[in-house]
Amino acid sequence: MSTSAIEQLIQLLAKLPGLGPRSARRAALHLIKRRESLARPLVTVMGEVLDNIKSCSVCANIDVNDPCLLCTDDRRDTSIICVVEEVADLWALERAAVFRGRYHVLGGTLSALDGVGPEDLNIAGLIGRSAADEVVEVVLATSATVDGHTTAHYIADRLADCNVVISGLAHGVPVGGELDYLDEGTLLAALSERRPI
Amino acid sequence: MSTSAIEQLIQLLAKLPGLGPRSARRAALHLIKRRESLARPLVTVMGEVLDNIKSCSVCANIDVNDPCLLCTDDRRDTSIICVVEEVADLWALERAAVFRGRYHVLGGTLSALDGVGPEDLNIAGLIGRSAADEVVEVVLATSATVDGHTTAHYIADRLADCNVVISGLAHGVPVGGELDYLDEGTLLAALSERRPI
Repeated sequence: MSTSAIEQLIQLLAKLPGLGPRSARRAALHLIKRRESLARPLVTVMGEVLDNIKSCSVCANIDVNDPCLLCTDDRRDTSIICVVEEVADLWALERAAVFRGRYHVLGGTLSALDGVGPEDLNIAGLIGRSAADEVVEVVLATSATVDGHTTAHYIADRLADCNVVISGLAHGVPVGGELDYLDEGTLLAALSERRPI
Repeated sequence: MSTSAIEQLIQLLAKLPGLGPRSARRAALHLIKRRESLARPLVTVMGEVLDNIKSCSVCANIDVNDPCLLCTDDRRDTSIICVVEEVADLWALERAAVFRGRYHVLGGTLSALDGVGPEDLNIAGLIGRSAADEVVEVVLATSATVDGHTTAHYIADRLADCNVVISGLAHGVPVGGELDYLDEGTLLAALSERRPI
């Protein structure tokens, strides 16, 4: 069938999220067919990223610069810090272009089940940053899950001594969402947080 | 947000079948998180495959050897050649371990719409191989599509002068298939090709 190097390639591709064994085989054949237009550039770019990627020492975003471009961008508001769980969440907020302050990436959530404690997350760095005079507000943009809420509450407690406003994202009906498809928790939040129009 | 190299990586990953822009971002973050356990080996193995992969000069299978391991395997029956459209089809047959002869990969199907003619496919090589004395049968295992049938008929015509039996795959109810979910064409084929039990 296929020789060991191709088999290895398929097995490694199958570890990517979104690809299973069957789609990894398709991807491998696709790469081999388009070796000059796709596979070679992919090897080059991936090598480049791996050689140059750093975790920002300020906010833990990933970038080829340290501090990252977001932390060194003078046009961004330094008075407000948005705390997110993962780099993917930071990317989502940046894609939406809805936040112009600084970020702080925790690297996960507290989780008793998975044995993740406060010392496993990037929390100490956040306390240090929040103590700076220029910081006025910290937005806790963790997920609306049990672990996300636990983490947000824990961080809020830790930030009690810092002179900052602590806020969280609003809950409610997603824009474009139909009530019929929403869960009870979301409907309850949307109703109890109702506002004058 | 992310810098150019990461953006490039995401764009290249998004070209893989089965990955869209969103899942390519997830894949890129996954690779960056697991750089030593996944991304580095992937770069190494992909580079290795690209440097060593060849198209077999006999059957057009891909392999690091030329002729490929299937063409040089003495235990395989040289009297029967199975003609498939793509390497993926050859892999599927090999996974099922249902065929112990040799293969011949066409590299596609005849297609008037896409402008694919006989000279674009690996047909001349097949005629040459089929003319050899040892070859007794050629199985045309092209897809059960209009283009697949057209290609099979064209090849059957071209092989008319070679002294070989020409056969095609059986049509019928897939093993494990329920009649309720099958299309009319398959049901018609299954009924007209019915056999004594």
